[in-house]
Amino acid sequence: MEQGASGSNETVIDSEQDWRDERTRDIVDKIETLRQSIDNVDMAIVALLAERFKYTSSVGVLKARAGFAPADYKREEEQMRRLRRLAIDAGLDPEIAEEYREFVVTEAKKRHKRIAETGEDPGVLDIFA
Amino acid sequence: MEQGASGSNETVIDSEQDWRDERTRDIVDKIETLRQSIDNVDMAIVALLAERFKYTSSVGVLKARAGFAPADYKREEEQMRRLRRLAIDAGLDPEIAEEYREFVVTEAKKRHKRIAETGEDPGVLDIFA
Repeated sequence: MEQGASGSNETVIDSEQDWRDERTRDIVDKIETLRQSIDNVDMAIVALLAERFKYTSSVGVLKARAGFAPADYKREEEQMRRLRRLAIDAGLDPEIAEEYREFVVTEAKKRHKRIAETGEDPGVLDIFA
Repeated sequence: MEQGASGSNETVIDSEQDWRDERTRDIVDKIETLRQSIDNVDMAIVALLAERFKYTSSVGVLKARAGFAPADYKREEEQMRRLRRLAIDAGLDPEIAEEYREFVVTEAKKRHKRIAETGEDPGVLDIFA
């Protein structure tokens, strides 16, 4: 089998396959190693996201208890500035750090909506934690 | 100053402020502690995203060198299944893990476009790494 199962639009890369030459075999091995690193990164990020949503939920509960508004734009601005700076330090496009923040905020909103739709108490929406 | 500077739509929470009572003061301290944890999580995720984009770029270069197509739907399906399982294990809504994957794929595309627009060589787009 050459270049995977599905022709030119897709190449299924699988170390069990019988690749056409030594050089291709070598590239496939390197890709497999990198994919394992990508999977490890994803595992760590999923674990961190789980913690992040627990923290933001707790902040939401505390804000409600104190009668605080959900929004805190000063905090939001500081977070954004910090994330951009951290991204630059880490060699990441700062636009991606901004989009990451958009992503967690959007997910917090969706999550809240999903919980409300199942009839459960969605708790306090705290997208600005 | 009570409940921050901007009235009911926003509460700026800042430990330097003179909060109205001991109980509010205590809640503010708890929120500050949680916010530090959220910031630490964000720092770790930004560092991991920087690594992830480096890995996926390398995969892109290797695929191009071997003449492989960018897409590998088998890999994509496996990643998605794995991410959902990891999310459940971590106590994270598996929908959020799916959205995380959407996020990194979308960012890889945007990043590629941004680089191309500046006239630099955008390299190989490898959103499926």
